[in-house]
Amino acid sequence: MTDLEIANKCQLQPIQQIAENLGVDPESIEMYGKYKAKLPLEALDEKLVERSNLILVSAISPTPGGEGKTTMSIGLSEALNQIGKKTTVVLREPSLGPVFGMKGGATGGGRAQVLPMEDINLHFTGDFSAIEKANNLLSAIIDNNLQSKSNSLGIDPRTIAWKRVMDLNDRALRNIVVGLGGTTSGIPRETGFDITAASEIMAILCLSSDLIDLKKRLGNIFIGYTFDKTPIYARDLKAEGAMTALLKDAIKPNLVQTIEGNPAIIHGGPFANIAQGTNTVIATKMAMSLSDYTVTEAGFGFDLGGEKFLDIKCQSAGLKPKAVVLTTTIRALKYHGGADLSTLKEPNVKALENGIPNLEKHIENVEKFGITPIIAINKFSTDSEEEIEALLAFARSKNIKAAVADVWANGGKGALELAQAVVDSVEAETAAFKALYDWKSPVEEKINKIAKEIYGATRVEYSAKAQSDLKRIYNLGLDAMPICMAKTEKSLSDNPKLMGRPADFSLAVREIEIAAGAGFIIPITGNIMRMPGLPAHPAAEQIDVNEEGKITGLF
Amino acid sequence: MTDLEIANKCQLQPIQQIAENLGVDPESIEMYGKYKAKLPLEALDEKLVERSNLILVSAISPTPGGEGKTTMSIGLSEALNQIGKKTTVVLREPSLGPVFGMKGGATGGGRAQVLPMEDINLHFTGDFSAIEKANNLLSAIIDNNLQSKSNSLGIDPRTIAWKRVMDLNDRALRNIVVGLGGTTSGIPRETGFDITAASEIMAILCLSSDLIDLKKRLGNIFIGYTFDKTPIYARDLKAEGAMTALLKDAIKPNLVQTIEGNPAIIHGGPFANIAQGTNTVIATKMAMSLSDYTVTEAGFGFDLGGEKFLDIKCQSAGLKPKAVVLTTTIRALKYHGGADLSTLKEPNVKALENGIPNLEKHIENVEKFGITPIIAINKFSTDSEEEIEALLAFARSKNIKAAVADVWANGGKGALELAQAVVDSVEAETAAFKALYDWKSPVEEKINKIAKEIYGATRVEYSAKAQSDLKRIYNLGLDAMPICMAKTEKSLSDNPKLMGRPADFSLAVREIEIAAGAGFIIPITGNIMRMPGLPAHPAAEQIDVNEEGKITGLF
Repeated sequence: MTDLEIANKCQLQPIQQIAENLGVDPESIEMYGKYKAKLPLEALDEKLVERSNLILVSAISPTPGGEGKTTMSIGLSEALNQIGKKTTVVLREPSLGPVFGMKGGATGGGRAQVLPMEDINLHFTGDFSAIEKANNLLSAIIDNNLQSKSNSLGIDPRTIAWKRVMDLNDRALRNIVVGLGGTTSGIPRETGFDITAASEIMAILCLSSDLIDLKKRLGNIFIGYTFDKTPIYARDLKAEGAMTALLKDAIKPNLVQTIEGNPAIIHGGPFANIAQGTNTVIATKMAMSLSDYTVTEAGFGFDLGGEKFLDIKCQSAGLKPKAVVLTTTIRALKYHGGADLSTLKEPNVKALENGIPNLEKHIENVEKFGITPIIAINKFSTDSEEEIEALLAFARSKNIKAAVADVWANGGKGALELAQAVVDSVEAETAAFKALYDWKSPVEEKINKIAKEIYGATRVEYSAKAQSDLKRIYNLGLDAMPICMAKTEKSLSDNPKLMGRPADFSLAVREIEIAAGAGFIIPITGNIMRMPGLPAHPAAEQIDVNEEGKITGLF
Repeated sequence: MTDLEIANKCQLQPIQQIAENLGVDPESIEMYGKYKAKLPLEALDEKLVERSNLILVSAISPTPGGEGKTTMSIGLSEALNQIGKKTTVVLREPSLGPVFGMKGGATGGGRAQVLPMEDINLHFTGDFSAIEKANNLLSAIIDNNLQSKSNSLGIDPRTIAWKRVMDLNDRALRNIVVGLGGTTSGIPRETGFDITAASEIMAILCLSSDLIDLKKRLGNIFIGYTFDKTPIYARDLKAEGAMTALLKDAIKPNLVQTIEGNPAIIHGGPFANIAQGTNTVIATKMAMSLSDYTVTEAGFGFDLGGEKFLDIKCQSAGLKPKAVVLTTTIRALKYHGGADLSTLKEPNVKALENGIPNLEKHIENVEKFGITPIIAINKFSTDSEEEIEALLAFARSKNIKAAVADVWANGGKGALELAQAVVDSVEAETAAFKALYDWKSPVEEKINKIAKEIYGATRVEYSAKAQSDLKRIYNLGLDAMPICMAKTEKSLSDNPKLMGRPADFSLAVREIEIAAGAGFIIPITGNIMRMPGLPAHPAAEQIDVNEEGKITGLF
């Protein structure tokens, strides 16, 4: 059965019931159909947040298909509920880019899914659309200001850093020229579109504590310079009020349910390769207000989502995770050990052992934050016992807890051992979270720390463009912000072809973007693009709707 | 008090109650918060449609601020309910272009509004976003096909007629070049964005009878030609299934309520100047299934929305309106009579009389469809008694019913006389609806009929581009479709400066677009743009959100 077929067979509970189970007054939620709802911000209670246990699920460097981090987060949450811990899983919202592209949806798989999967994977409650509209309203206001005679700020069009966004994989929009067609149709200039998840508005929504904080951050967005070199921010264009109005519902976290009828909160941004990539602070704190355990995810690998979760989000919101789970698959280790993608279903202990250094590096990286990770082996039916034993032996040799979790086939029941390991770890109070770097350090020092200590680079190289971007950051006085790297998820390095545990490489910083409203700096490394493209045969070709209005071909 | 302040003072009923009053099982609706819902398509009953009375509210040529056609439709609907006729008003969804631009929202005004106005004017239930995404997914698939080696249809990029859309006034996107930046970022080509309301997807949604009809129409969208001149449609790109999946909720009509607690259905496309501009067939038929009277609107003036409503929508769906109301204002007549916009609040009977030929032409136009209109005088506090009497005297001289309706100040109570006139007209069974032209006539003949008989042009001029577009339409065998003119709303002619009843002008057809999926041909006349621009000081500058999360500055 496909994920969608499994999902369609489930008997869903009314979302009011899920809210009630969480202790939220069903009258206070805003329903979007029968099975989705917005939670009221008033249900967030900072005092309860402090008493809750936050568990981060991340992963090793993934294969192109992903290693099931979301699936594992859902399965672990089901298992924790099964062993009597009141648990909520908090996930990121899917982007339509992968849904219509190659990777598919982001609602888990098999018996470990959040529902209704087709709604969550398509428009859900409209948050992405609201973010897109707020972003592009600012763009329209900028270009309108260039055109206007009576309301001109004198912005130099060549300096505008703000781009439009669209939640699709559309490579033809990466580099465009707008404003053609004569005097009535704008001022010609070079610009482009990023994917919506990479919008600074998404990051602002993810990091804001409330609507007023959101508005303030929106006003702080850096736009560019006037012809006489004065920096211009969104507040100078009086744009932040209307942008906040567009986001008034998007700021509220979305409640849905897992296959086993447990609560799931899904809110905010994916794509930790090109964005901050973790769900919203409000969603995480909401779950922590309402549960004993909160399981959340950050991917692709720990080098991207995990590092950003801990250095940006946790520091910004004052959160301290009590445990970190590293999702690991036999197939990904074999891939890192040199096996070809097409052969990953065949047993190959040698390749597995060659790939283990990738896992080892991620373990070391987690430990740099004061936490010893737990390895969750996400079981595939093609894994051989010998391969699993080799991996467990490695874990024992490192004195790291590891558990096989069969959540795709068995849901929560498949992750009971993992859940117990997480609870033991939390109750032993071994985690002593500390950040990797001080936000106030010089920008180059922060980039260096991440590049060398997390990625394993020997040095960092800045292009001429990146060097002038650095200067601009210091000139604007925006250097005391954390770093949000844009780097390929396929490798620990910035080169997607370097598998395993790359050594002796330098990290190439191509350019550096400023997200003054979100409050971070984005070094763009290697050839990573903030607007992906579709594959030759996009998944969209397989998606259809039948006579009864049922969607098929979503996965 | 502003419209928003009046709206905020209203005590809303739960939307389930509104559904129940309509005879719809409250369990069958999908709620979007407490006061908005999607109606189930199963509630549409073609047999009941035939027994219901459809009333079209249109207007004379408006001033830039609009003459209150939506407000009048709501007020008339309230009044019909007050005199014991079970009535539903069916409106078009607002576009964010005017909301952030100049004209403001589209939810009526004063005591004649639909609620919750801020939600309806912003994202509502996400229909526009779904349309935008379906449109732009097709664009991404087209550009991806140009880029692909293994899945190429051989499309000639210079022939692609399909544009992207965005629901904002963003003139800099009218004419753009995409695909710049080298081999990994697409094939460079000229293209542009229209506003979302002008998307063919919007028209398809508005004209579709169900999800399967929708999918078929989406597949029929014309894209362009291959290098060897084979026409390419969306179905050749296997795009229509995924596009239908994106529209699976957007096809369901939205239920809200009026200030007086009566049902309002709001669904589908505005902008009858650059689009077909009337609400969806499904929404109209849904209201007719559930009410004795259905009041719907088509603007800007009858020359645009009215003509399209009758020649495209009514013919396509087999609908026959029983009465037509022409919304008329003293200030617009003075404007057409030569008075300056800044002086419209001052009494000026002379200007009024000079402007009456505009109204007279719209009356003649309605009569060409076999229906004698009723004049609704939308009363403003600045109208003088002498002016109103002059207008009523004109109506008497023409033997046309006219009623002063004070719906802004008094809601339904202000339109009782108008409502009675409508009921009398319907019960007298005087309407004998006939279309203006036969869809099967040659394209030029159809354009000629609209230009000469409705607009009053003496002839039609085709640019060289329009002539080659015409040839293409015949070559593709798409000539037997109705005409959906793109023309300024400010004048009966294609020149926005010609007020009153222009004579002795020719209509200039600049180019002709094909909407093969929607099933019509779009001659673009004069200088009309299908992507508007923002004014120097956009309304967005005034919109804000206060500490309690309440929006201010929306109007």
